[in-house]
Amino acid sequence: MTHKIAILGASGYTGAELVRLIATHPTMEIVALSANAKAGKPMAEVFPHLRHLDLPLLVRIDEIDFAGVDLCFCALPHATSQAVIKDLPKTLKIVDLSADFRLRDPEVYAKWYGGQHDALECQAEAVYGLTEFYREDIRRARLVAGTGCNAATGIYALRPLIADAVIDLDDIIIDLKTGVSGAGRSLKENLLHAELSEGAHAYAVGGKHRHLAEFDQEFSALAGREVKVQFTPHLLPANRGIVATVYVKGEVEAVYASLKRAYEDEPFMVMLPFGETPSTRHVRGSNFCHVGVSADRIPNRAIVIVALDNLTKGSSGQALQNANLMLGEDEATGLMLAPVFP
Amino acid sequence: MTHKIAILGASGYTGAELVRLIATHPTMEIVALSANAKAGKPMAEVFPHLRHLDLPLLVRIDEIDFAGVDLCFCALPHATSQAVIKDLPKTLKIVDLSADFRLRDPEVYAKWYGGQHDALECQAEAVYGLTEFYREDIRRARLVAGTGCNAATGIYALRPLIADAVIDLDDIIIDLKTGVSGAGRSLKENLLHAELSEGAHAYAVGGKHRHLAEFDQEFSALAGREVKVQFTPHLLPANRGIVATVYVKGEVEAVYASLKRAYEDEPFMVMLPFGETPSTRHVRGSNFCHVGVSADRIPNRAIVIVALDNLTKGSSGQALQNANLMLGEDEATGLMLAPVFP
Amino acid sequence: MTHKIAILGASGYTGAELVRLIATHPTMEIVALSANAKAGKPMAEVFPHLRHLDLPLLVRIDEIDFAGVDLCFCALPHATSQAVIKDLPKTLKIVDLSADFRLRDPEVYAKWYGGQHDALECQAEAVYGLTEFYREDIRRARLVAGTGCNAATGIYALRPLIADAVIDLDDIIIDLKTGVSGAGRSLKENLLHAELSEGAHAYAVGGKHRHLAEFDQEFSALAGREVKVQFTPHLLPANRGIVATVYVKGEVEAVYASLKRAYEDEPFMVMLPFGETPSTRHVRGSNFCHVGVSADRIPNRAIVIVALDNLTKGSSGQALQNANLMLGEDEATGLMLAPVFP
Amino acid sequence: MTHKIAILGASGYTGAELVRLIATHPTMEIVALSANAKAGKPMAEVFPHLRHLDLPLLVRIDEIDFAGVDLCFCALPHATSQAVIKDLPKTLKIVDLSADFRLRDPEVYAKWYGGQHDALECQAEAVYGLTEFYREDIRRARLVAGTGCNAATGIYALRPLIADAVIDLDDIIIDLKTGVSGAGRSLKENLLHAELSEGAHAYAVGGKHRHLAEFDQEFSALAGREVKVQFTPHLLPANRGIVATVYVKGEVEAVYASLKRAYEDEPFMVMLPFGETPSTRHVRGSNFCHVGVSADRIPNRAIVIVALDNLTKGSSGQALQNANLMLGEDEATGLMLAPVFP
Repeated sequence: MTHKIAILGASGYTGAELVRLIATHPTMEIVALSANAKAGKPMAEVFPHLRHLDLPLLVRIDEIDFAGVDLCFCALPHATSQAVIKDLPKTLKIVDLSADFRLRDPEVYAKWYGGQHDALECQAEAVYGLTEFYREDIRRARLVAGTGCNAATGIYALRPLIADAVIDLDDIIIDLKTGVSGAGRSLKENLLHAELSEGAHAYAVGGKHRHLAEFDQEFSALAGREVKVQFTPHLLPANRGIVATVYVKGEVEAVYASLKRAYEDEPFMVMLPFGETPSTRHVRGSNFCHVGVSADRIPNRAIVIVALDNLTKGSSGQALQNANLMLGEDEATGLMLAPVFP
Repeated sequence: MTHKIAILGASGYTGAELVRLIATHPTMEIVALSANAKAGKPMAEVFPHLRHLDLPLLVRIDEIDFAGVDLCFCALPHATSQAVIKDLPKTLKIVDLSADFRLRDPEVYAKWYGGQHDALECQAEAVYGLTEFYREDIRRARLVAGTGCNAATGIYALRPLIADAVIDLDDIIIDLKTGVSGAGRSLKENLLHAELSEGAHAYAVGGKHRHLAEFDQEFSALAGREVKVQFTPHLLPANRGIVATVYVKGEVEAVYASLKRAYEDEPFMVMLPFGETPSTRHVRGSNFCHVGVSADRIPNRAIVIVALDNLTKGSSGQALQNANLMLGEDEATGLMLAPVFP
Repeated sequence: MTHKIAILGASGYTGAELVRLIATHPTMEIVALSANAKAGKPMAEVFPHLRHLDLPLLVRIDEIDFAGVDLCFCALPHATSQAVIKDLPKTLKIVDLSADFRLRDPEVYAKWYGGQHDALECQAEAVYGLTEFYREDIRRARLVAGTGCNAATGIYALRPLIADAVIDLDDIIIDLKTGVSGAGRSLKENLLHAELSEGAHAYAVGGKHRHLAEFDQEFSALAGREVKVQFTPHLLPANRGIVATVYVKGEVEAVYASLKRAYEDEPFMVMLPFGETPSTRHVRGSNFCHVGVSADRIPNRAIVIVALDNLTKGSSGQALQNANLMLGEDEATGLMLAPVFP
Repeated sequence: MTHKIAILGASGYTGAELVRLIATHPTMEIVALSANAKAGKPMAEVFPHLRHLDLPLLVRIDEIDFAGVDLCFCALPHATSQAVIKDLPKTLKIVDLSADFRLRDPEVYAKWYGGQHDALECQAEAVYGLTEFYREDIRRARLVAGTGCNAATGIYALRPLIADAVIDLDDIIIDLKTGVSGAGRSLKENLLHAELSEGAHAYAVGGKHRHLAEFDQEFSALAGREVKVQFTPHLLPANRGIVATVYVKGEVEAVYASLKRAYEDEPFMVMLPFGETPSTRHVRGSNFCHVGVSADRIPNRAIVIVALDNLTKGSSGQALQNANLMLGEDEATGLMLAPVFP
C-alpha cells in the first residue's frame, strides 16, 4: 500500500530534505507540496537538485484536498505552523517540524516564544518526536512534534545519563557547534557566504537559545526535579551537521555503559568505541547519530560527544522515522541511506 | 537473487563511494573488501561514515576467494589495476575504475601513461564505460573500463554534437572546474585544506591532462577524423562536483536540439530548459548529470555546461550503473538517490 | 601632510576594504564615513573587524562638511553614485567605485544599465581607473571611475596583446571564476552560505554581464575597430579572488613577451615564469595581480591566466592606488601589504 | 637603524607568516631564510604569495653567517628547535616559535614531549613569550619562547581572572575551536581538504593536548597552588583562527571588570562590550585579540570567549611583537595591519 503524503512548506530546507528522503521511500508518494509565496512554481525552480523527480506543482495550502492525504508533514516557520495545523482535518496524521508543539506547558511556550499559543488543544495531544524515547507514543499519535535539532543532539547525550542517575544534575555544560542550514533559507546578513565562511563564533550565549526550553522540559520531567543545563551554540562554516561536546561529572565507565545500553538496539544510534570522537562529516546526509565518550584527566569527569546531521536526524529524517511509525511501517524504511563522505 | 560483490581498493574515495551506494542496493551484497596497506582493519576505522554497516574486514587481494564473487569492482590506482586484473579469474565480471583500460590503442596508452601496458589482452576486450553510449556493449562485457571523471563530463557535452555534425570540430574549448575528491585520498601538499580552500587555480594547462587521451579517442573515432579539443581543468575549493563550460561554434538551436534528443530517454541525464545553467551543488552525491545550453551574444556560438558529481556519475555511480547492466539488472537499480542539497 | 579622506558607503565590503587599507596608510586620515541606513552607528557595530580603529561615527551624506575633505571615495551602489556625485563640490577629488562613470558613451551606459545617466557632465570628465594604462590621466583627474573587478582582470590579460597586435581579435574567450564578495553585502538567496558553498556554477552566460561593456569600450578603442569577446563568469565558493582563464589565438612566445614588457616596471603586476599558473590564494588581501601564460598542445593558441583580489586590486586597492596619484603620493603608498596565505 | 633578521624554518606556515609581516615592517630586513629540505630554492617557489618580495634564497642553517644577524626567528618543528638553538651564537637574540622552551620544568617537558630536553641551559634562560604578561622580561631576554597558539587563547581568557581571584579554580572548562593552519603544512590524511572541510570534530579529548602543560604551568604559578583545567580542542573547516569558549564560576561583573582592567592599555587586546561575542572572522590576518564576556542564566557562572588568529597573535605576530621589544622598538611596529574581512 502506498501512503499519500503532503508536505507544507516545501520551499525551505527541511521541506526539500523531506522530498529528498521520500524520493526513494518504497511506500510513500508525495501528492501535494505547498509553498505559499512560491505557489504555482515547479519544485525544480525552487530546488533544482530535485529536478529529476516527477513532483506536483507547489500550491497554496488552501488548494490542497486533504481527503486524499494519509499524512502531512508541516515544515512551516514557527508560529505559522500552529495557525495552519489547528484548521487541518482532525483525522489527518501530522508530523510538525516547527517548534510549535514541542513544549507541553503553554506558559513555558509563551515565555520562550513570546506569545500565547494559538492551538492549545492540538498542543495537548502532541507527542514529542524523539523516536528513541517516545516510540510507543509516536506509534499511536495523530500529531507528532519534531524536536529542535540542537535539542535532539543534547538529549541524545544526556537522557540515558539522567535516567540512570550517573551524573551530577547541577553541572552540565553543552557546548554545541552547528552548521548553517539549521537557520533555514532566510535572508540574513550573518548567513551570507562572505560573512559566515572561514570562521566560527558563539551565538545566543548564556541561556537565550530557545532549545533550552526543550532541555528543561525533558530533563526535569525525567529527573523529577528541576534540571538546568548551560548551553552555548556556535555557528560553523559548514552547511550540515551538529556536534555537541557535553561536559558532565560522574564515573566515565558508568556514563559509557549507560549510553551503550540505551542505544544498543537502536537502528540509527551508533556508539563509538570508548575514547573515540564523532565528526559531523561522518553522518552527513544520513539519519545516523554517532555517540562517543571520553574520560578526562580530572577524575569523575566525562565528555560525551554526539554528532548528527541537523537536516536529517535533527529534523526531516527524524520526521520520516516518526511518520513510518505512525503509518505502521518499519521505522527505518527509506532511511538507511549511508552518509555522504567526502 | 543476490549478486556477490568484491571491491578492490576499498580504502580510497571511489571504493568508499561504491560501498555507500551498494549499502542500499537491493540485490547486491558485498562479500569482500581489499586494501593492501590497511588489510586486517575494519572499514569503520578507515571510513567512519560507514560504521553502521555490517561489512567484511579489509583483506589483501590474495586472501579473496573469487569463486564466490559474481562481480568485482577494481578501484585501485592506475597501473596497479592492470597488474591485478590480468591475474583475476577469466570468468569474473570486472568493472575497473582506473585509467588502465580506457584507451584502446596501446601506443596511445604508453604515450599518456608513460609505459608499456601490462595486460594487453584484457585491454583488448575492455569496453569504455560511458553507459549512455556503450550500453549494449557493456551489457555483454566481461571487463568494463570506467571513464575519467573529467572525460565523462566533457563527452556528455560534446558527443551528440559531434555525432550530429552541428559544431565546428576545430574550435572546441573545455574549461572545466573540479572538486578535490577527484584527486583521491593522497597526501599531497596542494590537497591540504590550508592550501586548497578559499581559492581556485588552473592545473595541467595547455594539453597535459591525461583525460585528453579519452577525448581524442572518443571524438576522433566518432568524427572519423582527428579531433583535438583544448582542455583546461581548474581545482575548486569543494570536495565533490565537476562543472565543464564548453565553448563551441555552431547554431545554438541545433546544439540544444541535439543534446535534448540524445538524452531524453536517459534515466540520469537531465536537460535543463534552454538558457539555464547547471550547478555542481544540484547533483552532489547523486548519479544525475545536468546539461544546459546557452546562446552567446556573438552569432554561431553556443555554450554547453555540464555538471555531475565526480565520485558518483563520474566514477563509482557510473561503475554501479554498468555493473547493473552486466548482471542483468535495471541500470538504475540502487542509483536513484536524490542529490544532497544544501 | 595628511590628506583628509571621506568614504561614502562605508557599510559595504568595498567601503570596509578602503578603511582596512587606509588604517595603515601613512598620510591619509579618515574624517568622515557615511552609510545612510546605518547612520548614527559606530563602524565597530557594522564591521567588528575594524573595532580596534578610532573612526568617526557613520553619518548621512548630507551631514558631511566636504570643505574639510581632500578626497572622497564613493563606494555607493550603482545609480546611487551618480545622483550623489553630481551634487558634491566641483573642486572635490573623487574616486568612484561604482559602475556609474566607467562608460564614456552615454548611450552605451543607457543600454547596459537600463536608463539615462543622471550626471552627464561628470561622466564626461571621468577617467577610467585602470592605473597601469591611464596613469597620467589619473594623476590630473578630479573624478576617477573605478573599473569593474572582472573587467580589470580581463583587461590585464588582453590589453597589451591587443596593443601589440599579437592575437586574433575575433576569437577571444574569457572564462572567469570569481569569489562571492564581488556581489557585495546584499541579501540574496544565492549568496547564502548554504546555497553557495561546496560548489560552482556559471552565471550571466552568453553576453549578459555588464562588465562586457567595459571590455567592448576598452578593446575597441585600442584596436581601432569593434572587438567583442566571449565572457562567462562563474561563482566560486570563496570570498575573495578572481581568476580569469583567457583563450587567445596567436604565437604564445609573442603573447608572453607582450605581457612581460607591459608589466615589467609595474609595482603590482607580477609576471609568473612561462608555463606557471596563478592562483587566487596567492594574491588574497593584497593589491598584487599575478599573470601567467601557457602554451597549448594546439599550435598558435595561448592561455593567459590572471588572478587578483576583487576587493583589493579589483576595487578598493585600485581606488587607493589612484587616490595616491591624485594626491601626489607614490602610487604604492600603503598598498604593499603582502597577500594573506593560508 | 635596520635590524638584520634571519628566519629558520621558512618553508612552514609560521615562517611564511613572519615574512608576510616583516615585508611591511619599517626597520627590519630579512637577510637569511633557511629551509633544509628546500635549500637552494627561491621563496617564490615554496610560497608563491610572497613572489613580489625581493628575498634571499632558502639555504641550509649551516650556510648562514650569524655574525650579520641581529635577531633570529626559529620556526622549526618541536625538538628540532632545541638542537639548533643550543649551537647558535650565545649573543644572538632568538625568538623561538616551537614548544621547546615554553616549559620551565625539565621533568614536565619530558613528560609531555616524550623525552629529555637537549638544551637545558637555554631552557633555563628562556622567557615565556606572552607579551602582555611578561613584557619586561621579554625586553631584557636573549631567548623568548613563543607560546602555544591554543595556550595563548586560553591564557588570555583566564590569567586576569586567576590573578584577581574572581573565579573557582577547580571548575574551569576551555572548549576551543581552531582552524587547520595550526597543524602546520604537514601531509596528514585528516588535514586534506576532502577530509576536513564541511564539518567539525573534537581531538585530543580528555587531557591529552600538549598545550595543557602551558595552562598548568602558568595558572598554577599564578595561583600558588595546582590548577588543572579541562581543555577540549576542536578542528574547524577554516584555515586561520581560534575561538575559545571558557566556562567559569564566579560573579560575571567581576569577571568582566577583571579582564577590562587587564587589557585596557594593551595595543592588541580588544575588549568587546559586555554580552557581545567575538568571531575568528574579525581578527583574521591580524595581531588583534577580541575578548567577550557573557552572563549565563544560571547565577554565578560566566562565559569568556576569546578569538585570535593562530598564525598571527597566536604565533608569528606574537613573535614579532616580542622581537620588537627585544630590539628596542615599539612593540606594535609593523603589526597594526587591520584584519582581513570578508
